[in-house]
Amino acid sequence: MINFVFYAPTKVIFGKDTESQAGAEIKALGYKKALIHYGGASAMKSGLIDRVVASLDAAGIAHVGLGGVKPNPRLALVREGIALAKREKVDFLLAVGGGSVIDSAKAIAYGITNDGDVWDLYLAKKKAVACAPVGCVLTIAAAGSETSNSSVITNDDGGHKRSYNDDIARPKFAIMNPELTFTLPEYQTMSGAVDILMHTLERYFTNDKQVELIDRMSESLMLTVIENAPKLLKNPRDYDARAEIMWAGSLSHNGLTGTGRTGDFASHQLEHELSGMFDVAHGAGLSAVWGSWARYVYKHDIARFAQFAVRVMGVEMNYFNPEETALRGIEKIENFFRSIKMPVSISELGVKDLTEKQLDEMVEKCSWNGARQIGQFVKLDRTDMRKIYQMAK
Amino acid sequence: MINFVFYAPTKVIFGKDTESQAGAEIKALGYKKALIHYGGASAMKSGLIDRVVASLDAAGIAHVGLGGVKPNPRLALVREGIALAKREKVDFLLAVGGGSVIDSAKAIAYGITNDGDVWDLYLAKKKAVACAPVGCVLTIAAAGSETSNSSVITNDDGGHKRSYNDDIARPKFAIMNPELTFTLPEYQTMSGAVDILMHTLERYFTNDKQVELIDRMSESLMLTVIENAPKLLKNPRDYDARAEIMWAGSLSHNGLTGTGRTGDFASHQLEHELSGMFDVAHGAGLSAVWGSWARYVYKHDIARFAQFAVRVMGVEMNYFNPEETALRGIEKIENFFRSIKMPVSISELGVKDLTEKQLDEMVEKCSWNGARQIGQFVKLDRTDMRKIYQMAK
Repeated sequence: MINFVFYAPTKVIFGKDTESQAGAEIKALGYKKALIHYGGASAMKSGLIDRVVASLDAAGIAHVGLGGVKPNPRLALVREGIALAKREKVDFLLAVGGGSVIDSAKAIAYGITNDGDVWDLYLAKKKAVACAPVGCVLTIAAAGSETSNSSVITNDDGGHKRSYNDDIARPKFAIMNPELTFTLPEYQTMSGAVDILMHTLERYFTNDKQVELIDRMSESLMLTVIENAPKLLKNPRDYDARAEIMWAGSLSHNGLTGTGRTGDFASHQLEHELSGMFDVAHGAGLSAVWGSWARYVYKHDIARFAQFAVRVMGVEMNYFNPEETALRGIEKIENFFRSIKMPVSISELGVKDLTEKQLDEMVEKCSWNGARQIGQFVKLDRTDMRKIYQMAK
Repeated sequence: MINFVFYAPTKVIFGKDTESQAGAEIKALGYKKALIHYGGASAMKSGLIDRVVASLDAAGIAHVGLGGVKPNPRLALVREGIALAKREKVDFLLAVGGGSVIDSAKAIAYGITNDGDVWDLYLAKKKAVACAPVGCVLTIAAAGSETSNSSVITNDDGGHKRSYNDDIARPKFAIMNPELTFTLPEYQTMSGAVDILMHTLERYFTNDKQVELIDRMSESLMLTVIENAPKLLKNPRDYDARAEIMWAGSLSHNGLTGTGRTGDFASHQLEHELSGMFDVAHGAGLSAVWGSWARYVYKHDIARFAQFAVRVMGVEMNYFNPEETALRGIEKIENFFRSIKMPVSISELGVKDLTEKQLDEMVEKCSWNGARQIGQFVKLDRTDMRKIYQMAK
């Protein structure tokens, strides 16, 4: 087992009606004025923002609001938030929404505590020296940003999507009420389920020596999502299924499944260019490329893919032909994606007739014009990336 | 799934040579003077204390030492530590040892930040208002105190063993180098493995509705311990097996396996009286009573015991007779205990010829003279406790 640091200090407050605790939590932490950051009209219409505001008022926490965060959150709004937060002397960022809103709040939190342009962090030009405190009321089970150290922002100028990861941005608290996800559109629910699965899968395929405990815990997370997501197709108001998936979402991306091993994350990098350019849902983009990635790399470690097939996808082990077992595992997870109405190709994702020029552009962006390889399980260069995108068309 | 709060803020620094980071971690947290708390001569002889001291010196952290913590740590030494820490104006408690040392350090940390007698906390007479910061260098995988909120202390005066749990006592950091456990006596290693298993088992048997994710994660933890403990009988210097068990120890008791459900902990309460009176190893005490507890209560939820038997102990499900499956699971874990040389009865634990008077005394202590019941899966009163002790003789 390789050495590791695991630090997930977020206080998780999980369950029904917990959003009413937001104000008291901020007060207990000693902060005075919050920027309430949120997305579109649904949080307003549902009355959620009103309830959160009431909770802050009751605790004597001053606040200003900034809505308008879109999926694949934009740098321009982050800059607006930084200016607003500075002007209003905000000392706490309260994100009310999903991963995009939380990521945007983290970016604002970096922006008000670090000199210079916040985008430089995402371009890996420098490191943050501090981060203002962030808390969140989660409304979508997907990104895991509610307990993770990561923030992904898209630069409006050219569609570059970049992430910045630092433990100082981990939220102080995450309020998670599964009921808040009852009214999510089905496509977003299922895209979230795929994202959660992928955060675990990306860490499961690794070159590091197997860690039995973390393998088994990863398999637990994947089995739970595969068991519960289909229940939500039938009944989107199934509290326990929502709760299982929501908690799995945090535990898939708080670092636990990466302890004692290094993750791969090639599929995430490949997808970032897709959603950066075509603004597709992140989870759907992941299911569109994962199978192609897997078929491109599986020969590197057939035993590992076979373990996944047997323990997670319920494939019977073919001891005389482990490769067949490995391939059946990939096929079965693609069937699972189809069963929850998620795409398994870029065209099913809605990006039809991908041109050679667009392919080139994605490869150039993903490889930083050839300056980086992606992946750890198998290192992928420009040529590999192009082949995988081609396979996934 | 019931509402829950999960808060495990300890920074885990895991792997080879990590003890050299102790000083830098304390410095990064802004503290100046540490009380280094430890147990017997082995930490001195092995050179571990010297290495930790060197790390503090290198970081400019002043320090005083207090050794002598025994298994089932005593209140008298805690009081001595409180006086020393106050006299020396210590602002950080560094525990170098296993659960007993960490629990003792937490008690000292409570003592220097709360007025009145620290034992009142353990007697549930009052609540702590604060706790001085604690960090640890772990040398035994067992109690999980390195990331937990719990501290168990034995009052020398009459052998009362009591616990106090509060999130404010969770260590700031836990340095976990599996190599430090290479030289543990076999009995202590195996007793630790049982303790780890039990922390998960105690939360697995619950009346709350099943949480699939947490069930599966709990099963992962148990399977990992059952797989790896026997490897250490053959080769106590097996790094990966030590690492799997050490990390399982923290994850079994940091609260994760209790999320969304209430634990039982009756076996722990029954055992506390055994180790309080006879000073036996905690894990060994647990394996001595668990089977009797299980046989006394299993009819309350045969399906749950059957799930345990099938998923953890590898028993084949007897669909026509689930009770037989449930009982075979209990039998198999007792066989596992025997295979790692752990007792499955109080006499095998070394407490021979338990008298009626001693039994009465344990029951009176455990039931607080009849003032409390123990357990959640099945609530147990004096009569139940006596019967279980009797079955376990």
